[in-house]
Amino acid sequence: MINVGIAGVTGYTGIELVKLISNHPKAKLCTVSSNSYAGKALTDVFPSMRGFETLICEGLSAQSLSQKVDVIFLALPHKISMQHVPEILDHNIKVIDLSADFRFSDASAYESAYQEHTAKHLLKESVYGLSEIYREEIKAARLIGNPGCYPTSILLPLIPLLKKNLIQSDGIISDSKSGVSGAGRSLSLSSHFCEVNESFTPYKIGNHRHTPEINEILGIQSGKKISITFVPHLLPLTRGMLSTIYVEAKENTDENKIRDAYASYYENEPFIRILGKNLFPAISYVRGTNACDIGIHFCEKTKRIIIVSAIDNLLKGAAGQAVQNMNIMFGLKDEIGLNSVQVPL
Amino acid sequence: MINVGIAGVTGYTGIELVKLISNHPKAKLCTVSSNSYAGKALTDVFPSMRGFETLICEGLSAQSLSQKVDVIFLALPHKISMQHVPEILDHNIKVIDLSADFRFSDASAYESAYQEHTAKHLLKESVYGLSEIYREEIKAARLIGNPGCYPTSILLPLIPLLKKNLIQSDGIISDSKSGVSGAGRSLSLSSHFCEVNESFTPYKIGNHRHTPEINEILGIQSGKKISITFVPHLLPLTRGMLSTIYVEAKENTDENKIRDAYASYYENEPFIRILGKNLFPAISYVRGTNACDIGIHFCEKTKRIIIVSAIDNLLKGAAGQAVQNMNIMFGLKDEIGLNSVQVPL
Amino acid sequence: MINVGIAGVTGYTGIELVKLISNHPKAKLCTVSSNSYAGKALTDVFPSMRGFETLICEGLSAQSLSQKVDVIFLALPHKISMQHVPEILDHNIKVIDLSADFRFSDASAYESAYQEHTAKHLLKESVYGLSEIYREEIKAARLIGNPGCYPTSILLPLIPLLKKNLIQSDGIISDSKSGVSGAGRSLSLSSHFCEVNESFTPYKIGNHRHTPEINEILGIQSGKKISITFVPHLLPLTRGMLSTIYVEAKENTDENKIRDAYASYYENEPFIRILGKNLFPAISYVRGTNACDIGIHFCEKTKRIIIVSAIDNLLKGAAGQAVQNMNIMFGLKDEIGLNSVQVPL
Amino acid sequence: MINVGIAGVTGYTGIELVKLISNHPKAKLCTVSSNSYAGKALTDVFPSMRGFETLICEGLSAQSLSQKVDVIFLALPHKISMQHVPEILDHNIKVIDLSADFRFSDASAYESAYQEHTAKHLLKESVYGLSEIYREEIKAARLIGNPGCYPTSILLPLIPLLKKNLIQSDGIISDSKSGVSGAGRSLSLSSHFCEVNESFTPYKIGNHRHTPEINEILGIQSGKKISITFVPHLLPLTRGMLSTIYVEAKENTDENKIRDAYASYYENEPFIRILGKNLFPAISYVRGTNACDIGIHFCEKTKRIIIVSAIDNLLKGAAGQAVQNMNIMFGLKDEIGLNSVQVPL
Repeated sequence: MINVGIAGVTGYTGIELVKLISNHPKAKLCTVSSNSYAGKALTDVFPSMRGFETLICEGLSAQSLSQKVDVIFLALPHKISMQHVPEILDHNIKVIDLSADFRFSDASAYESAYQEHTAKHLLKESVYGLSEIYREEIKAARLIGNPGCYPTSILLPLIPLLKKNLIQSDGIISDSKSGVSGAGRSLSLSSHFCEVNESFTPYKIGNHRHTPEINEILGIQSGKKISITFVPHLLPLTRGMLSTIYVEAKENTDENKIRDAYASYYENEPFIRILGKNLFPAISYVRGTNACDIGIHFCEKTKRIIIVSAIDNLLKGAAGQAVQNMNIMFGLKDEIGLNSVQVPL
Repeated sequence: MINVGIAGVTGYTGIELVKLISNHPKAKLCTVSSNSYAGKALTDVFPSMRGFETLICEGLSAQSLSQKVDVIFLALPHKISMQHVPEILDHNIKVIDLSADFRFSDASAYESAYQEHTAKHLLKESVYGLSEIYREEIKAARLIGNPGCYPTSILLPLIPLLKKNLIQSDGIISDSKSGVSGAGRSLSLSSHFCEVNESFTPYKIGNHRHTPEINEILGIQSGKKISITFVPHLLPLTRGMLSTIYVEAKENTDENKIRDAYASYYENEPFIRILGKNLFPAISYVRGTNACDIGIHFCEKTKRIIIVSAIDNLLKGAAGQAVQNMNIMFGLKDEIGLNSVQVPL
Repeated sequence: MINVGIAGVTGYTGIELVKLISNHPKAKLCTVSSNSYAGKALTDVFPSMRGFETLICEGLSAQSLSQKVDVIFLALPHKISMQHVPEILDHNIKVIDLSADFRFSDASAYESAYQEHTAKHLLKESVYGLSEIYREEIKAARLIGNPGCYPTSILLPLIPLLKKNLIQSDGIISDSKSGVSGAGRSLSLSSHFCEVNESFTPYKIGNHRHTPEINEILGIQSGKKISITFVPHLLPLTRGMLSTIYVEAKENTDENKIRDAYASYYENEPFIRILGKNLFPAISYVRGTNACDIGIHFCEKTKRIIIVSAIDNLLKGAAGQAVQNMNIMFGLKDEIGLNSVQVPL
Repeated sequence: MINVGIAGVTGYTGIELVKLISNHPKAKLCTVSSNSYAGKALTDVFPSMRGFETLICEGLSAQSLSQKVDVIFLALPHKISMQHVPEILDHNIKVIDLSADFRFSDASAYESAYQEHTAKHLLKESVYGLSEIYREEIKAARLIGNPGCYPTSILLPLIPLLKKNLIQSDGIISDSKSGVSGAGRSLSLSSHFCEVNESFTPYKIGNHRHTPEINEILGIQSGKKISITFVPHLLPLTRGMLSTIYVEAKENTDENKIRDAYASYYENEPFIRILGKNLFPAISYVRGTNACDIGIHFCEKTKRIIIVSAIDNLLKGAAGQAVQNMNIMFGLKDEIGLNSVQVPL
């Protein structure tokens, strides 16, 4: 049994982790922390969460964690995570960090998008937790930088095509759409019901912080410098994310080669499903699951490929992939605790 | 292991049953039927449902069922159910019928609300599947008439107060609100997105078919003739149901007595939660669960009691309670296969 | 031409007033104030509002108003309104106050629900702006206390039945449901998209501040002390309000008498529509209009009457009724500026 | 006063036309037709539409129209429109057709996307009703093919840049998103509330019928053969459309030139608003209006331009533009009857 702690338990990613670990047959939830609700029982914060009447939110202390857990999930804001990670690692606890703090190997890329990095020495060691791509590194890791939701939805479909040299590395576009839960539980006019409901809008065009994260991984994987055009939009729904990706095929690329590339990468991956010809993902097909669905349209005439991917931003885009990474780190099958059947509504 | 069949698998209740049985540790889904999609794999009908690529929808035949299953859930329209039930029972298969056909013990009450009953002889035998109230009868039953969603949300809070003689049996009002999935997957203007979205309206005031069902059970339980005032409304959301119930207290009733009545009925019931003073249910607290949350406000001055109950109409209001009844019929604990933790979004 | 000012212009009621006054053929919007956005153009605060690129939000000063306007709408929080009203009146400006500050004639009722009243001397003079009921008083008023949204939806259907002595004054229940815009534009977890969406819940049972407002007016109108049971609920939609009201008929009441009572009150009222037998309001029928739709179900057997009313909470429940009152005060027909045709979506 | 008829009045575009014409100071609604609701009053079909209790839906007859109207709006399905248009024109009535039947000048393009054209001889005469672009032709027209909603949202931002030679004509991509009302009021699983709500999905990738319409107009305007990549998606909201368009700049293009191009085309256009730097459209900014908002992001590094446009699909995308065209045909200012102020909710 893996002993688990969760920090930042009262955000949307935090409670999703609580749900997953509680339903996990090989893990035990031992301690949870919350800054804003310290001292309160989890059920009092979230009345929907039955059975947690006696699970009290604590403060976060590496010392006290070391008595209790083998691994801790940090569902904390960036900047806060890196303040805690070094000490936690010193106490021999594995860390799966869901903030951006340990996703980058290039500190300057991090610093230009976020702020000064105060634990740079760990960036070489930390592993980017895109489970299907970095499986081997994750097995051996003590520190995971769990990917952002947009990057997950964009990298999974792009990496096989880039590695197999089937697409141009220039001119990649991702038009991505996310549900409101991606913005978290803190208050802002942009998540006020009346401002979001019945509306739809792009945001942070040209300067979203997930762009350098995507570019760094695409660069590492392809061996080329890549600058994608990335436009995120806000959907009037709670959970789910869909990316419509436009790329140019190389000379001899055809649809079979594309499908073969995906098969060679993902055939045995339980969470990745390549849809058949003329089928495309919908958010309702993946909501509540750790899946990433991918659909492909290849236009012979224009040599352009349209790839559509869908994930649940709180699961494969955050808490689900984090648990998948825990499974990999502890030698379990990926799908343990993550394979419940879901209906489309 | 209980061998299970599900008929009418491509409606919303049907697929919910598929989900529950597939996640159930003591049951095995052996066969599914669908009239509209016979011959198609379930995953092709519902792409969200992974792992059912080879589960083919069949036609419904008692003969062939008898080789395969111990129990069948009928998620069929009323009238269709009663055409199949007698033959299925003859093949020694237990039946949990989710239509209205076997909910009534009084055939004339059924017939005035629905149509001629063609299997009247079974009405004496069939058990009303309100799990917490008819547990003993359910244990011994071969035919369950699974309750309607509105009746479940209204009967569970009312029965203890009536049985303990704490409230007037006259003048009971239930102002109930349901999500759109309650109307099923068939097409009608009243479930067109643009007609429902951003709207809210009562419907079938004075003539909803759940009224006689509620009145019959309240009458049986209280020993009095009861006519409740029941007004259903349609909420612009997919799943969930909330009933706000208004009753008059008897002379010596006080809040403690009310809470004691609930405790004596439901203290050990895993799915019923009586909320503390000044706390009231929300649909988000029960969505995705088999729970029924109940909140109470007692007004000293007017001697009026306001009781609020919330359920997921597809779970405790349909498929979840059906599985709970299966558990009871087969000697399992109620919560087996039904106790996954849920987040509020 | 009526010269108009609007204070508190950047809330949802405030901008609704801007829209109405701008579309009004006999009124001219001369000045707007906003505390939070002083110095900004209205179009910069609300990009949807074209044509207001040069309308700058100012601070609120009675002195400067007096040069500019004949009437001011105060869309300010309660407590703030009463700080400004006396001085504004001194400058000979009519006031239509949309806060609760001048709705009560009984200061102690106000004070027990809100806070100390600092302009008590004006309570005798201020007129409750329920347009159809207090038309004569409104004509002569210089200070209107514009009704709350819930009270409007409840008082309009109840007053004719009480005045005509057709219903019991005891045991009145209103089960009311409001869209999220009723809670305003300020930030709180209870208007966070992810907390409201796909949920539904009652709130403030037994202690909502609109209860004493309703009771005071019902008492004045009926000559009896009335205590209604009022349960508000939050709907997952932006605008609209529906109240389902339960009352007991007196001995000789029948449906014709009820319909006659409404006809005698409202036959010539442009905004009140009494629906025919078996027809009931929907929020989509009134959204975007100043209408109040009323549907009636009379149950012969139980002698109970179910009355359903629907309004747009921002229009007949706030800004629309305020403009209707302005029309009455300035001798215009009620519907001037308020009668645009609306589609149901 | 322009005498107006509307055919197909009980679809979403039809009732939107009723609203607009009823609020129009220079037009009079003389007759409406509906196949499905012939003989019923409009208010009985749409209870929200007050004041139409005596407006009876008729059958469609050119003969009887000729006594009553100067112009008729046809909100009919394609194929049905072209059956009626020749005879209506013969009766000297101007026609604004909202179907696809008269949008194409190339009959074979129409036929490959739709079906055989039975009134080909009129295609040379009919004018494509993109108001800002074909104003002069519209003035003189007796037959308008009113543009599709997607084409409107894509053509308005692209034409100035193509005509001014600022962008490549190859590789244009439009990632477009539409509310559900775009699919009309007829029943289908894809507009069932439970299937749309909380979901999002692309559809008809590579074969949407609006693609050839867009390509034909872009070709005519640019003098080049253009094949855009167009991916439509379905948003879980009722009304509104947003297109995110990706194009490549030509060598010397910069942001100023782009803004100048838009200014030269649209500076005096009342319905087109070019947003300032770093500002982008939202559906809530245009819902309920005839506006088209356009935002621009120019990326120096990649020489790629991101253009975002938003319209209300039922107004500028259908009924609103149709009325704008009527205004132009009858010598009125564009904004007559179309310029009411809108709030963002």
